Amino acid sequence: MHSLRFTASATSDGVLERDFTLGEVTGVLWSPASGPDHAPLILMGHGGGLHKKTPALMARARHLATTCGYTVAAIDAPGHGDRPRSAEDDQARAELRRAVAAGEPIGPVSSRYGASLAERAVPEWRAVLDALQDLPEIGADTPIAYGGGITLGTAIGMPLTAADPRITAAIFGGGFVVHDALLEAARRITVPVLFLLQWDDEHVDRQSALGLFDAIGSREKTMHANLGGHGGVPAFEDPAPFLVRHLGRATLSPA
Amino acid sequence: MHSLRFTASATSDGVLERDFTLGEVTGVLWSPASGPDHAPLILMGHGGGLHKKTPALMARARHLATTCGYTVAAIDAPGHGDRPRSAEDDQARAELRRAVAAGEPIGPVSSRYGASLAERAVPEWRAVLDALQDLPEIGADTPIAYGGGITLGTAIGMPLTAADPRITAAIFGGGFVVHDALLEAARRITVPVLFLLQWDDEHVDRQSALGLFDAIGSREKTMHANLGGHGGVPAFEDPAPFLVRHLGRATLSPA
Repeated sequence: MHSLRFTASATSDGVLERDFTLGEVTGVLWSPASGPDHAPLILMGHGGGLHKKTPALMARARHLATTCGYTVAAIDAPGHGDRPRSAEDDQARAELRRAVAAGEPIGPVSSRYGASLAERAVPEWRAVLDALQDLPEIGADTPIAYGGGITLGTAIGMPLTAADPRITAAIFGGGFVVHDALLEAARRITVPVLFLLQWDDEHVDRQSALGLFDAIGSREKTMHANLGGHGGVPAFEDPAPFLVRHLGRATLSPA
Repeated sequence: MHSLRFTASATSDGVLERDFTLGEVTGVLWSPASGPDHAPLILMGHGGGLHKKTPALMARARHLATTCGYTVAAIDAPGHGDRPRSAEDDQARAELRRAVAAGEPIGPVSSRYGASLAERAVPEWRAVLDALQDLPEIGADTPIAYGGGITLGTAIGMPLTAADPRITAAIFGGGFVVHDALLEAARRITVPVLFLLQWDDEHVDRQSALGLFDAIGSREKTMHANLGGHGGVPAFEDPAPFLVRHLGRATLSPA
């Protein structure tokens, strides 16, 4: 058993940002600089090739901390961000780069690598969740959602949400090559889902993304499809209304 | 030229509701009981067989008046609500009832009747818009959106939005049998669009509804798809964020 260690801490614009490690997993926790304990906890995933402090992810995390009072956690996927890369990571990345450069479909290597990353990342997330719930400011009773993101964040988030009953609402997205294991995980998900689809994603067939949404087993699921390519989820796609509907809002002291 | 005549007026729960006629067109106008003039104007359409004061439409209109300060207008489609029915209306309704009762597809009669209603309703809406802009409390410079709804409201709203440059944002939906004239209207629409789709609509093929969204010519368009059947658009589908993003909010005096 590893224990969670905070390695850096800084406050800016009303948000406390704390880096942590749990064994070899590197993560970060954002929370309101002054807010109540036991606020809802949102788990954020980053896209393939990116890391836990990608600007768009950070902006969303800080927005949720300041407007909803939430605590937001992100970890680096295996082989990403501050974590060492294995030979498999290097090889998969080289193949992906080669396919993109050659204008070839990234499907086969992307879905094989994504499935492998998810197999490693799901137990890591669950261990991080155990450790976070041991923190007095979070605790075991706070509501938890998977708050994104699309692409690799979905490839990891879907099996995680299917496996861990502590997650009671989830945001996923298209932008990832759909493979059978992902469809199978989607079918086992029963919590309310918001699914973000980029209508003109250049990497992923639209019908397969619609099929992934269709496969989700939840009785309440909503898809927000927006015009534009892979990386273009519009800024107005605010996750807060969905999360507040299902997790409530932390009681923030008036400014 | 007919002129707009108010025929009834009542205030409840902070909303002024005024019935009006313009020639043979019967309509209703909702506005905040106390609010500024020249608030954004939202045009609402009702579903097939329904009328301008259908409960769901009224609830949405009153919500927009009280939370955004908007003026909201609805009119009865030809042969609907307080308007006389022609022999064509009676025949089409009888055919629709018969098809539903027999479990037959409503497609052919629904799309033929819908196209005919739209041909009559678009010039009516444009005349109502002229008359509303002549009212001192609305005026010619207020921003205007088509605010729904799905089904017949889309069959009429798409050609209306394509034809009238005063409409600068629009909310449509699935639930209507897609025909060529509707696709052609969709292609001519260039304003921002929010499109509501019921994922399990029992009357309309999902792929044809996705195709209608795909055909819309706008550079900014968003689809919100929700699980459930024809009539089940969930209450959390609030049109306000989309409308406020594109039309702003009327300045309401603090309560």
